[in-house]
Amino acid sequence: MKKFETLEWKNNELILIDQRLLPTAEEYVVCKTVDDVADAIKNMVVRGAPAIGCVAAFGFTIAVTEAFKELKITDNLFVSKHEHFSKLLKLIKTSKDKLANTRPTAVNLFWALERINKIFDSGVHLKASDLFSSVSSEAEKIFDEDIESNKKIGLNGALLLGEKVNIMTHCNAGSLATAGHGTALGIIRSAHSIGKKIEVFAGETRPFLQGARLTAWELIKDGIPVTLITDNMSGYLMSLNLIDAVIVGADRVTSNGDVINKIGTYSLAVLASKHNIPFYVACPWSTVDIKTQTGAQVTIEERDSKEVTGYGTSTWAPQGIKVFNPAFDVTPANLVSYLVTERGVVKPNNLHSLKDQ
Amino acid sequence: MKKFETLEWKNNELILIDQRLLPTAEEYVVCKTVDDVADAIKNMVVRGAPAIGCVAAFGFTIAVTEAFKELKITDNLFVSKHEHFSKLLKLIKTSKDKLANTRPTAVNLFWALERINKIFDSGVHLKASDLFSSVSSEAEKIFDEDIESNKKIGLNGALLLGEKVNIMTHCNAGSLATAGHGTALGIIRSAHSIGKKIEVFAGETRPFLQGARLTAWELIKDGIPVTLITDNMSGYLMSLNLIDAVIVGADRVTSNGDVINKIGTYSLAVLASKHNIPFYVACPWSTVDIKTQTGAQVTIEERDSKEVTGYGTSTWAPQGIKVFNPAFDVTPANLVSYLVTERGVVKPNNLHSLKDQ
Repeated sequence: MKKFETLEWKNNELILIDQRLLPTAEEYVVCKTVDDVADAIKNMVVRGAPAIGCVAAFGFTIAVTEAFKELKITDNLFVSKHEHFSKLLKLIKTSKDKLANTRPTAVNLFWALERINKIFDSGVHLKASDLFSSVSSEAEKIFDEDIESNKKIGLNGALLLGEKVNIMTHCNAGSLATAGHGTALGIIRSAHSIGKKIEVFAGETRPFLQGARLTAWELIKDGIPVTLITDNMSGYLMSLNLIDAVIVGADRVTSNGDVINKIGTYSLAVLASKHNIPFYVACPWSTVDIKTQTGAQVTIEERDSKEVTGYGTSTWAPQGIKVFNPAFDVTPANLVSYLVTERGVVKPNNLHSLKDQ
Repeated sequence: MKKFETLEWKNNELILIDQRLLPTAEEYVVCKTVDDVADAIKNMVVRGAPAIGCVAAFGFTIAVTEAFKELKITDNLFVSKHEHFSKLLKLIKTSKDKLANTRPTAVNLFWALERINKIFDSGVHLKASDLFSSVSSEAEKIFDEDIESNKKIGLNGALLLGEKVNIMTHCNAGSLATAGHGTALGIIRSAHSIGKKIEVFAGETRPFLQGARLTAWELIKDGIPVTLITDNMSGYLMSLNLIDAVIVGADRVTSNGDVINKIGTYSLAVLASKHNIPFYVACPWSTVDIKTQTGAQVTIEERDSKEVTGYGTSTWAPQGIKVFNPAFDVTPANLVSYLVTERGVVKPNNLHSLKDQ
């Protein structure tokens, strides 16, 4: 695994680029404990559903190291035979819950934790060093698979686009939101790399400004033409026939094809539908929550009012103002033209056809 | 004319609350020259179509004083008989153009300048002091009529609303955007004052944040419940059935009923239509541009990219990013439920029925 901008796993430490400071400063946060990892997710040092999944997997790996250390379980001990084995299971469960309780909406977090927990459970008969190896390999595998998925999504999506296309995107579903390449931006990158003439219109994405800060930064770095707009300009641009397609990522896709994604996605989907503009959702299969029937059943995270009353250290709204700050919204399946996954491109109501691949 | 928050005319000087600094600071800008007035409009010390109209009218009055002074036209001289009369007309024309060239979209600016210019033209046979009096009285009349119109709009609009109603608004069409009371907020104020239970959801209105800064400030001052949201949350709130009506102001309404208003209005109108939520536009008759056929013919102002790359002294977008910053958009008449004017409430396609009142 090579060092990448978003996250790096090195000597049992997780190094994250601090996405709160981009593009003004490129600083890194080093997570040495489960608490460090949980804080980094909660406080949005790292964000983006697939990236959160990877980070949680490495967080689980750190949890194993921490628990072994606390219970003095050394490399050559057979874990399940250790006198404090039940205590170990309890410690792991506590750490896993800590990681799971950081953010409620993106499903990759829970998906990655379950996947790695299964590896842990099935390896407890091993020596400690071998159990640790299986867990950490699984985390690296989740990471590597994510990049691979994004590249497949990129190509699958690029084939949907014309030779010259103006694309509107929202939030950041880029390298920074994933292990690398990106989902929505992965499609844009792939299309650009195979020679399509792409022009991106990036909505700034209040309140956290992932579009203005992260998407703009990534695309400029890659030399892909990008124009920044405020979120409320999207309808007007569509009415001027400036937009040929909308591509966004997803934090969760439910069984019926509903898409839970960054707040503002639903408004964009309604506007795209009104203007007969195709609306594509790029989502690795890790984002698909086949067990949940509809978007209405998903918990939508509400974040601190301070995000809305200003940005960073600036506050511009009057003191004491009441705020509503949902971080995501639900776009019903019927407003989505296609779901673009690494397994293929489907109409949302055909999501199940990819289930058993 | 009483002192009011937005603007005060006193000893031939125009005092404006600096709307760029609200609600953080309440500071005033004193305009003593036509250049001062033009700068205040251009730089958005004052904004809002009706307020800009009033300010331009007082600006014209200052232009007359300046020209009289420059040409040494004293009070008792008959203006049209003065040796430099043609020079005077030229000076007045230059000042009027300077005021007209500040912002292109809101029609009240041109409407007020034409109205007061007519008074000037028809009074040039008078003594200088009398001509000045007619001009300054006309400016005060424009101001007083604006408040009166807003109060009528307020009541006309309030009657459209139920007894308990959640209203979404955009930008600031309040006291600060007018001579007083407000247009969209005028309806909200009137409805509140006759005992209707009003809850307002104010979109922050990027990039200039008139919603977060000005609408929130006004409503808190008046004790009207208000919740602040980012602009991209509006669709989600509608999908949750939290919104009963949308009320916005207008910078210009064309002959066919198209509405030109703050960027983001069009998106809101599409979203309201999708959710069967009534969409009301509050507009004094001074905002109606009966000579222009459709919204497509109106010049949409584009403002500096710095407004989008950050706010105030903060910049968060990457350096050198390309920006599109249209300040207004066009909402087609078919998305507007009713136009609420001081002359009555009409469907946009019936606008002409109010023309000759």
